Amino acid sequence: MRSCLFILLFSGLFFSLDSAPQTAIVSGHWNKLYSKVLQEDRQFAVYLPPGYSSDTQKAYSVVYVLDGDETRFKAISSLVEALSSDNLDSQIPELIVVGIPNTNRVRDLTTSDTDFIFKGRVLDTFPHRGGASKFAAFIEQELFQLIEKQYRTNGKRALVGQSFGGLATGHILLTKPHMFNNYLMIDATYLWDDNYLNRLAKDKLDTLPDKPISIFIALANNDHLGEIGITNRAWGNEFIERLSKHKKLLLGSRYFEDERHATVELQGWYHGIRFLFGQSNE
Amino acid sequence: MRSCLFILLFSGLFFSLDSAPQTAIVSGHWNKLYSKVLQEDRQFAVYLPPGYSSDTQKAYSVVYVLDGDETRFKAISSLVEALSSDNLDSQIPELIVVGIPNTNRVRDLTTSDTDFIFKGRVLDTFPHRGGASKFAAFIEQELFQLIEKQYRTNGKRALVGQSFGGLATGHILLTKPHMFNNYLMIDATYLWDDNYLNRLAKDKLDTLPDKPISIFIALANNDHLGEIGITNRAWGNEFIERLSKHKKLLLGSRYFEDERHATVELQGWYHGIRFLFGQSNE
Repeated sequence: MRSCLFILLFSGLFFSLDSAPQTAIVSGHWNKLYSKVLQEDRQFAVYLPPGYSSDTQKAYSVVYVLDGDETRFKAISSLVEALSSDNLDSQIPELIVVGIPNTNRVRDLTTSDTDFIFKGRVLDTFPHRGGASKFAAFIEQELFQLIEKQYRTNGKRALVGQSFGGLATGHILLTKPHMFNNYLMIDATYLWDDNYLNRLAKDKLDTLPDKPISIFIALANNDHLGEIGITNRAWGNEFIERLSKHKKLLLGSRYFEDERHATVELQGWYHGIRFLFGQSNE
Repeated sequence: MRSCLFILLFSGLFFSLDSAPQTAIVSGHWNKLYSKVLQEDRQFAVYLPPGYSSDTQKAYSVVYVLDGDETRFKAISSLVEALSSDNLDSQIPELIVVGIPNTNRVRDLTTSDTDFIFKGRVLDTFPHRGGASKFAAFIEQELFQLIEKQYRTNGKRALVGQSFGGLATGHILLTKPHMFNNYLMIDATYLWDDNYLNRLAKDKLDTLPDKPISIFIALANNDHLGEIGITNRAWGNEFIERLSKHKKLLLGSRYFEDERHATVELQGWYHGIRFLFGQSNE
């Protein structure tokens, strides 16, 4: 039993073929909960910063990442760790990062039960769609509860999403603004449901609560896609313009001319996280 | 014994307070070897890409990272994983990453046994310095051997260094060019030893072997440091100019006006790795 305990305690230790000891470098852990809202098991990944275990009194802001598969989770949490480390001049505070991978991406991240149509042309069809509000309810009623019970959080939360995840992020900003303090929208699908995000902004912007909310919006260069790409950016700029008129919002945005929809994420995270958490913006 | 074996096999599994299973997200492993060259134990971290275990025939290029502490190792290996994943359009091939942390940074990464002097003014003094050639011998004679014996490598290697690590990277490029195929120098210390890197380039550039070598040089905006910062960039530009005259080198460079010496690394990695490994440059 004692030897089992020893192995358990040192479970990060493995032995390679030539018996040189190897110690695992752990970036986080996968966890799981059963969601009553979604009626399914949901996984989530949790990154705790290096200081978490040494200062047991300190509480942290939490960054929730949509489309949070393992590769994306590792990339964004290690970017957060680098930016909060001495290596890179401690530009942001240490943060907890929670990755939320998909089970049915389009079902959970789109905002209306319609096909993906642009000017009468069907761009794509999906068997399930329009569940963003239900997905937000899962995050608010079930995931927040678990994270905030299990970890030392300070009540401040950020949401990060790209493409359909950016659509869901904008949807939550405008329909459930109390859920997060910071929003990072990376090349969101403004095309969805015929300019949905701008219609929503027109309706909801004045209803935002009187609390500081920070938003960073990244747009990519999708001109190679023709009218679809050009329109998505135009509607993205329209969204930025609408939000910029709201005095309570701290808005940052950047157009990445050298990045496409499929490549812009890393730059979006880098500039977005520095904007949202850098210096006085925490 | 059987239960011990079970625990050992599933040593990535932990149980949290409420008994929900947690699975560790592992970014790599720490290893160790005794260096006869340096007469000390040296650690190194190894990242293997997701495809490594599924395609057991495939061999990979290896990226060696100076100043390779755990935070930097996680950041650069997860950046590599993201850029090589479908998520970000598979912009680069999958790569192995090896992080080399410091035991005595200045001893191993500087190129002459002098104080750090600029225009007669001592900027800093260090008890040990000038060991870059010895450190390169450790990498070539001991670390390469071990990595290439233990892992499926394709013989192509890259070296990444920043600041003094950039100085060492330039030193190795010009004195042992056969060691690596790709070199990424991030805001190197051109100030070291009164423009050492340019003196070396003047002497050695014509001796480079007739094989393709790719180099990416990132420079930061250090104007806030006054003459020291301005001179370091001027000498960096002089170095770029010298290298650009060598027909065999594939040279990329970028000046990051919005980044300082202490912040430029992440942007240097992003643009440098895409330049060195993107598309046809692999």
